[in-house]
Amino acid sequence: MSFIIRKGKAGDCKAALELIHELALYEKAPEEVELSLEQLIDDGFGGNSIYELLVAEDRGQIIGIAIFYEKYSTWKGRCTYLEDLIVTKSKRGIGAGKALFEAVIKYSKEKNSGRMEWQVLDWNVPSINFYKAYDAELDGEWFNGRFTREQIQKIDLD
Amino acid sequence: MSFIIRKGKAGDCKAALELIHELALYEKAPEEVELSLEQLIDDGFGGNSIYELLVAEDRGQIIGIAIFYEKYSTWKGRCTYLEDLIVTKSKRGIGAGKALFEAVIKYSKEKNSGRMEWQVLDWNVPSINFYKAYDAELDGEWFNGRFTREQIQKIDLD
Repeated sequence: MSFIIRKGKAGDCKAALELIHELALYEKAPEEVELSLEQLIDDGFGGNSIYELLVAEDRGQIIGIAIFYEKYSTWKGRCTYLEDLIVTKSKRGIGAGKALFEAVIKYSKEKNSGRMEWQVLDWNVPSINFYKAYDAELDGEWFNGRFTREQIQKIDLD
Repeated sequence: MSFIIRKGKAGDCKAALELIHELALYEKAPEEVELSLEQLIDDGFGGNSIYELLVAEDRGQIIGIAIFYEKYSTWKGRCTYLEDLIVTKSKRGIGAGKALFEAVIKYSKEKNSGRMEWQVLDWNVPSINFYKAYDAELDGEWFNGRFTREQIQKIDLD
């Protein structure tokens, strides 16, 4: 294989944000990405960082990323949450997604995570098949509830 | 109303864990709660705490809890994730759930959270109606993917 997997740096965030936009477009929600490059850098590499970044690099080009963080479960305790696993379209099929995903499993193993979790759209068949090949459980019994930032600010509290 | 909402303390974790078990039973997954009292105390009140606890207290009795933490979204940045909102069955209907939920909204407002999120089982109609009364979005388009702790430890990595 021609790529390597390594820990991300602040300087990778520009390429990471491009991949985040590429995925949002595929997920039919391009307008939902409100995150700025400055925010992404600060949230991952500032004094109070909240996520971990792994990148797949192919001859100097970032072709894929995994972004994950420690979440909490009142059933399992500290868990690993994989927020994004993205490989750019032109570089699929060379194993970068597999290598990134397995690096996150390795991280979860070392952390002794209570679970490793992620979400996948119910119509994203290639990704669903990718996860099924690992015997992952894919559970469609839950709704995601949410308020937007605007709703949070507008709700009238007594 | 006869109850108060206040920040939780380590001493509230025993009652909180009982409520976590009560909810897991309602969610038809009582065997899924692997968290010990010691772990819950350490995760919320140890040196490296990961969640926030609010309690509803009625004449010395903990009748409800909200457990939440800061999660990360590559679309919205830092968000509030409400892991559990529980009111014990015999104390429903007096507004404790509403008061706890609105306290978490208030927290999200003060934090300027990019979103406030939670999950609800697709057959839990009373809770769905509760969230709908707030005009929350409830989105059933995603699968929850997961590996258990045992799977994480067993997966053969190259």
